[in-house]
Amino acid sequence: MEWKPNRHSHLTIHQQIVNWIKQRIQSGEWPIHTKLPTQRKLAEAMGVNRSTIVNAIEELVADGILSTRVGDGTYVSNNSWNVLIKDIHPDWEKHISSSIYEPNFQTIQLINEYEQRENIIRLGTGELSPDLLPTAVLQRSLQNVPLTARDIGYSEPKGSRQLRHALSRYATKRGIHATPDSIMIVSGALQALQLISLGLLEPGSTVFQEAPSYLNSVRPFQSAGMRIVSLDKENRDNRLPDQIISMKGKKQSLFYTVPTLHNPTGSIMSLDERRELLQICAYQQIPIIEDDVYHGLAFGKTPPSLKSLDSDGQVLYIGSMSKTLSPGLRIGWVIGPEPVIDRLADIKMQTDYGSSAFSQQIARHWLESGLYEEHIDQLREQLKRRADFVEEILQLRYNSIATWNKPAGGFYIWLRLHEPLVNKALFLKLLKQNVLINPGYIYDAKDFYHIRLSYAYASFEQLETGLNILYEAIAEGTS
Amino acid sequence: MEWKPNRHSHLTIHQQIVNWIKQRIQSGEWPIHTKLPTQRKLAEAMGVNRSTIVNAIEELVADGILSTRVGDGTYVSNNSWNVLIKDIHPDWEKHISSSIYEPNFQTIQLINEYEQRENIIRLGTGELSPDLLPTAVLQRSLQNVPLTARDIGYSEPKGSRQLRHALSRYATKRGIHATPDSIMIVSGALQALQLISLGLLEPGSTVFQEAPSYLNSVRPFQSAGMRIVSLDKENRDNRLPDQIISMKGKKQSLFYTVPTLHNPTGSIMSLDERRELLQICAYQQIPIIEDDVYHGLAFGKTPPSLKSLDSDGQVLYIGSMSKTLSPGLRIGWVIGPEPVIDRLADIKMQTDYGSSAFSQQIARHWLESGLYEEHIDQLREQLKRRADFVEEILQLRYNSIATWNKPAGGFYIWLRLHEPLVNKALFLKLLKQNVLINPGYIYDAKDFYHIRLSYAYASFEQLETGLNILYEAIAEGTS
Ligand SMILES: Cc1ncc(COP(=O)(O)O)c(C=O)c1O
Ligand SMILES: Cc1ncc(COP(=O)(O)O)c(C=O)c1O
Repeated sequence: MEWKPNRHSHLTIHQQIVNWIKQRIQSGEWPIHTKLPTQRKLAEAMGVNRSTIVNAIEELVADGILSTRVGDGTYVSNNSWNVLIKDIHPDWEKHISSSIYEPNFQTIQLINEYEQRENIIRLGTGELSPDLLPTAVLQRSLQNVPLTARDIGYSEPKGSRQLRHALSRYATKRGIHATPDSIMIVSGALQALQLISLGLLEPGSTVFQEAPSYLNSVRPFQSAGMRIVSLDKENRDNRLPDQIISMKGKKQSLFYTVPTLHNPTGSIMSLDERRELLQICAYQQIPIIEDDVYHGLAFGKTPPSLKSLDSDGQVLYIGSMSKTLSPGLRIGWVIGPEPVIDRLADIKMQTDYGSSAFSQQIARHWLESGLYEEHIDQLREQLKRRADFVEEILQLRYNSIATWNKPAGGFYIWLRLHEPLVNKALFLKLLKQNVLINPGYIYDAKDFYHIRLSYAYASFEQLETGLNILYEAIAEGTS
Repeated sequence: MEWKPNRHSHLTIHQQIVNWIKQRIQSGEWPIHTKLPTQRKLAEAMGVNRSTIVNAIEELVADGILSTRVGDGTYVSNNSWNVLIKDIHPDWEKHISSSIYEPNFQTIQLINEYEQRENIIRLGTGELSPDLLPTAVLQRSLQNVPLTARDIGYSEPKGSRQLRHALSRYATKRGIHATPDSIMIVSGALQALQLISLGLLEPGSTVFQEAPSYLNSVRPFQSAGMRIVSLDKENRDNRLPDQIISMKGKKQSLFYTVPTLHNPTGSIMSLDERRELLQICAYQQIPIIEDDVYHGLAFGKTPPSLKSLDSDGQVLYIGSMSKTLSPGLRIGWVIGPEPVIDRLADIKMQTDYGSSAFSQQIARHWLESGLYEEHIDQLREQLKRRADFVEEILQLRYNSIATWNKPAGGFYIWLRLHEPLVNKALFLKLLKQNVLINPGYIYDAKDFYHIRLSYAYASFEQLETGLNILYEAIAEGTS
C-alpha cells in the first residue's frame, strides 16, 4: 500500500481517504467480503491519525459501502447496489463510453464539477451572473405572489391555468396566437426536450440538428436511442434541403433548431432561412422543435419566430425563464397543436405530477405585473455592456489569432481560432490556471477550432483576467 | 351528417363542436387535405348559429388542425404531428391498450378528468383537502424564505445543500443516519421512482411489489419495460420468501414497498415482517425501495423504518412533503448509498436540471424553523377526526355489506365488500351521481371487492352524502 493523501490537494484529507477506499472497491480491487487492513495499519501507511481513519470508515459504513463486525474488523459490504451500479442500463453506459463521446463526456463532467468550485473563472458558463439575477426584487415579490389552496394542491396536467393565460397573452407579442389549452408548463426547456423524446418518438427515430448544437452537450435524445443527424448549415455544395432529403430515414423525424440567438454560436436565422426551413419540413412532413429560450435578449430587432410563421401546427415552440429571470425557477413552456400538448402533459404527469406550484405562481405574478418585461429590458442593456467589454478585449488582443462575429444578443461569442488548438489538452491546461472554458468539441465532436465564450457569467474583472490567460495559453500553443 | 351538440351535456356547445371535428380527423374520417362543409351548411346541420361554427373553426386553425384558404373554404391541415400522434412510441401505446390494463387505464383517466370538475364528491382522492393545507401560513412564511443569488441559479446535482443538511437532521429522528452527500432532492416521490427506473434498471428487470399496489396506478416501471411481479402478502400456503425465490428472474430485481401506511390498504408492516423482508432481500441480493411518503401521519407509534434497520446500504429510502405539507411544492428526497445517489442525481440533471430552487428554499425554511413538524402534529389530529367520522358512518350503515380495518393513520380505509361488486359499471354509475371512487382494480387488476376510501379530501358533509350514495349503489347491486 503506497498511497498517501496529498496535503496540497483542494480536497480534505478525510475526503481523499474516503475516495481512495471507494476506488479500491469500485475498481474491483477490494471485492465484496474483503477484509480491510486494521485501522492502525491504515493510519501508519497513510501517515495520518488513527481518528482520521476511524472517521472515514464510519462514513463508508453509514453509506453501506463497508460494514464492521464487532471484534472482527471492517469488511466490504455485501451490497446489492454495488452489483446494480456496475451493470446498469447498458445502453446508457455504452453511450457514455462510446469512443466519440468519451472525451466530450469527460469534459462536460469536468465542467460540471469545476463550476461548483470557488475561485474559478468561468469563461463559458451559459448562465446569468449572480449580479444579473434580480434576487432582491424576487425576494420582495414573494409577498405579492397569490396563493390559494387550489394552487398548492396537485396541478392540472398542463399546469396552472392562470399562468397559461398569462403566457398566452405574452406569446401574442411574439406573434404567436395560442389558447391556454395549447400551452403546457414544464420544469425548464430541458424537460420539454426530455418529454418530447419520451412521448413523441420511438427509438430509432431521426432527430435533425444544426452543427454545432446545444443538444450534444445534454443529449436528451441520444440516451433514448434516437438517431441524431447533424446538418451543416454553411455547406454550399450540399444545401440544407438536400441534406434533409438524403438523410431522412424510414422512421419518424424531427428537426430541432435554435433559430434566435443560437447556442453555442449566438447567430440569428434570417427570415428567408426560416421560411425555407418551414417549407422543406412541411414538404417532408418533419415537425420542428423551435427552442426559443434566449428570446427577449437580442440587442436589435429579430425576425419573427418560426411558430408565428407556421400556419399548419408544424412547429412545437419551447420557451423558458431560465435565461431571462432565474434558472432556479425551473419554469418553461411548450406551445403546439393541442393533441401533441395533451400527449406531453399526460407523460409529464406520469413523470413528476407537474411543476412546482410556487414557481408557477411566481412566474405568473412576474408576467401579469409587468415585472418580467421590465426586468428583461434592463437585463438586455447589462448584457450589451458586457458584450461590448469582451469585444473590446478581443479587438485589442485576439485579432491575430481568431475571428468572431459581433454579438447580436444573448450570452455567447463563438470564437474561432485560426488553428485547431481547442483540444482537451488546452482545456486541462486552462483548468490548472483556474480558467474554465467551453470548448467547441462539446457541441460538435469534430470541432477543434472554436470556444464558446459567455459574457453573461463572470465578473468584468474575471473576464479580463480570464481572456488574458486564455490568450497566453493559445499563443504558447501556436508558437 | 347526423350529429348535433347535446344541450344537456356538461360541455359547452363550442367544446362539443371542437371535439366532434377533432374526432372526425383523428378517426381518419377526414384525412389530411379534406375540405370541410361550408360554415353555413355545418351551422344548419348542427342547429347552431353560424358564429358558433366560426369560433370553433378559428380555435382549430389556431391549433394547426385546420387551415383556411381565403375564398376557398376550410381544410384539414397537412399536419405532421397528426402523423406522429397516431404512431407514437409503440411500446407505450401497446401498454396502454393491452387487455389487462385497458379498463384500469380508462378508469384512471376518468378519475383524473373528473377530479378537475367542481361539484364532484371525491371519496377516494389521495390528497389533502384544501382545508387541511396550511395555505395562509405558507403565504406568510414566504417573507422569511432566505434567497441568495446562488440559490436561484442552476442547482447542484443533488439539490440545495442546506436543504439536504436539514433533511439529514430530520432523518435522524426516524433513526436514519445519512450525510447530506447521500441525500438527493427530487420533484416528489413519483420522480424518484421514475429516475430509479431510468437509471438503475435495464428493461426486463424484475420489480417486486405488494398486491394491491400504488404502482399499478402510476406505472413508472411498466412504461420503461420492466417486469412487474405482484406478491401476495396474505397467502399462507406460499410465503413471501418462497414467492420471491421462485419469481426472481435472471436479470436485476428490486423490491418496492410502502411499509408504513401502505397505499391503498393503509396497513403498517410489523417489525418482524420488516426484519424478515430485509433478510430475504439481503440473501437474494435484491435492493429495496422504501416509499415512506405517509411518514408522520400515523395515529399511534410505528415500527422503525426499513432504512433505519439496514446496515448494508440495501435500502433506498424515499420521502416527500406532498402528503404532509403541499403537493404543489413538488419536493421529495431519496436517501441511499452514495454511488447510487450520485447516479440518480446525474440522471436528474440530464432530465430537468434539478428541482425548483424556490420550493427547495421553502422546504428548508419549514424544516429549519420547526414549522414543518408543528404543522404535521396538527394535521395528524385533523386526519384522526376525519377518520373517526368516516368510521362512524361505516359502523352505522356498512356492517352488513363490508369489512374494514380501523385506520392507523394516513388517508385511507381499504373497504372490502362481501361480494365482488366493485367493477367499472359501479364506478360509472356513481360518476353519474357525481361521486368519484377509487376502485380496487386500479391497484390490483383482478380485485373487484375493494374500494379505497380516503377521509383526507372531501368535506365532512360530502363524506356523509357520498358514503350514503355509495351505500345505495352497492345495495342495489346486491339485491
Ligand atoms: C438552447 C437551450 N435550450 C435549453 C436550455 C435549457 O434551459 P432550461 O434551464 O429552461 O431547462 C438551454 C440552457 O442551457 C439552452 O441553451
Ligand atoms: C405511496 C405513494 N408514493 C408516492 C406518491 C407520489 O408522491 P409525490 O407527490 O411526492 O410524487 C404517492 C402519492 O399518491 C403515494 O401514495
